[in-house]
Amino acid sequence: VKIAVLGTGVVGQSLGGRLAELGHQVVFGTREPDATLARTGPDQFGRPPFGAWLHEHPGIELATFADAAAQADLVVNATSGHGSLPALRAAGDDNLAGKVLVDISNALDFSAGFPPHLFVKDTDSLGEQIQREFPRARVVKTLHTVTASVMIGPKDLAGGDHTVFVSGDDPEAKQVVTDLLHSFGWTDVLDLGDLSTARGTEMYVGLWTRLLSATGGTGHFNIKVVR
Amino acid sequence: VKIAVLGTGVVGQSLGGRLAELGHQVVFGTREPDATLARTGPDQFGRPPFGAWLHEHPGIELATFADAAAQADLVVNATSGHGSLPALRAAGDDNLAGKVLVDISNALDFSAGFPPHLFVKDTDSLGEQIQREFPRARVVKTLHTVTASVMIGPKDLAGGDHTVFVSGDDPEAKQVVTDLLHSFGWTDVLDLGDLSTARGTEMYVGLWTRLLSATGGTGHFNIKVVR
Repeated sequence: VKIAVLGTGVVGQSLGGRLAELGHQVVFGTREPDATLARTGPDQFGRPPFGAWLHEHPGIELATFADAAAQADLVVNATSGHGSLPALRAAGDDNLAGKVLVDISNALDFSAGFPPHLFVKDTDSLGEQIQREFPRARVVKTLHTVTASVMIGPKDLAGGDHTVFVSGDDPEAKQVVTDLLHSFGWTDVLDLGDLSTARGTEMYVGLWTRLLSATGGTGHFNIKVVR
Repeated sequence: VKIAVLGTGVVGQSLGGRLAELGHQVVFGTREPDATLARTGPDQFGRPPFGAWLHEHPGIELATFADAAAQADLVVNATSGHGSLPALRAAGDDNLAGKVLVDISNALDFSAGFPPHLFVKDTDSLGEQIQREFPRARVVKTLHTVTASVMIGPKDLAGGDHTVFVSGDDPEAKQVVTDLLHSFGWTDVLDLGDLSTARGTEMYVGLWTRLLSATGGTGHFNIKVVR
């Protein structure tokens, strides 16, 4: 399958790279591909520019949000929380229709510093907002509860003995995503139910930020649901 | 030490019973002891009335919130979220001053059914509200992330290989509570930092309620922080 990864940050790069390794065709979507490629300096986190990363990953393409989504069978939203709805609008409702949309975003508001607050929570979730605005997409919320390196390399943490969650209204879409998660090395994929259960995992991120501080700041941790 | 347990529900009973087993003097606090003892029918969950439970636990006392707190060296808030500040006001600021106050409450609002919403979250926590109103108490937030049976019997779940959190502004108080948790059988007691970190664990309860549904409804589960 051809997979569009919307967002060229660390989450997008990690997932796009891994998906390509696993044999998928990967096309990144961004607002302005030329502008993305024109950046030569390090990003805000001191990482190399996306163009350099892309150069090292031959076969991976870069396109506009719309072109990337139009080509793809499955779309991954790896943009920021604030950027998610604008990116998906740019991708276009018709280009998302009928497709599995893996939503990894978190509704993080850093305007008051760290730890961030959540700009959607408890009585709604970003996953549900996306589903409501794009009702023909088959949204599955997953992977937003771990840092990028754990998303794609669960076995590098305690041999993979920890949990990832899926929430979504479409059972078949959840199965597609669960298979993809298994291919990354996840073994404990816990289906929480319909997309409203993403409220739980999105709020968990408020604990994740405190765990980040309490465990040394690397992000190399996760939770295992012991039952 | 003498321990006051405020609240006569299942959480209070579980903790009070376990603390007595461990050799502590336990006094329960309730709004009107006579009214509590006068109840002869099952409670809202179909459990025996508190008087029957108390009868089976000789040596455990029952008093008003104020009398219980006044006698105690350490106070446990095992009341409901909505009931916490009223119960602590009834206990009295002077009776809480200088004492370790173990706060187990959750800001659950069931007015819209299950899963409950949170009436405090993200930018504040119930633990902090309590600390602000009773600045002389030494509040430690803990145990609110698991069901009553797991609180007092962590080893009965996966041999105890899972995590409990403590948050609080007073390091000495956190050590007292950590020792108490160890005496219950907890081995992985994770200190998240100051009391504001309770925002994280209180929001986690939004995931806990979804895990409750996804794991069969018994509540016999917990998370382990894998790091």
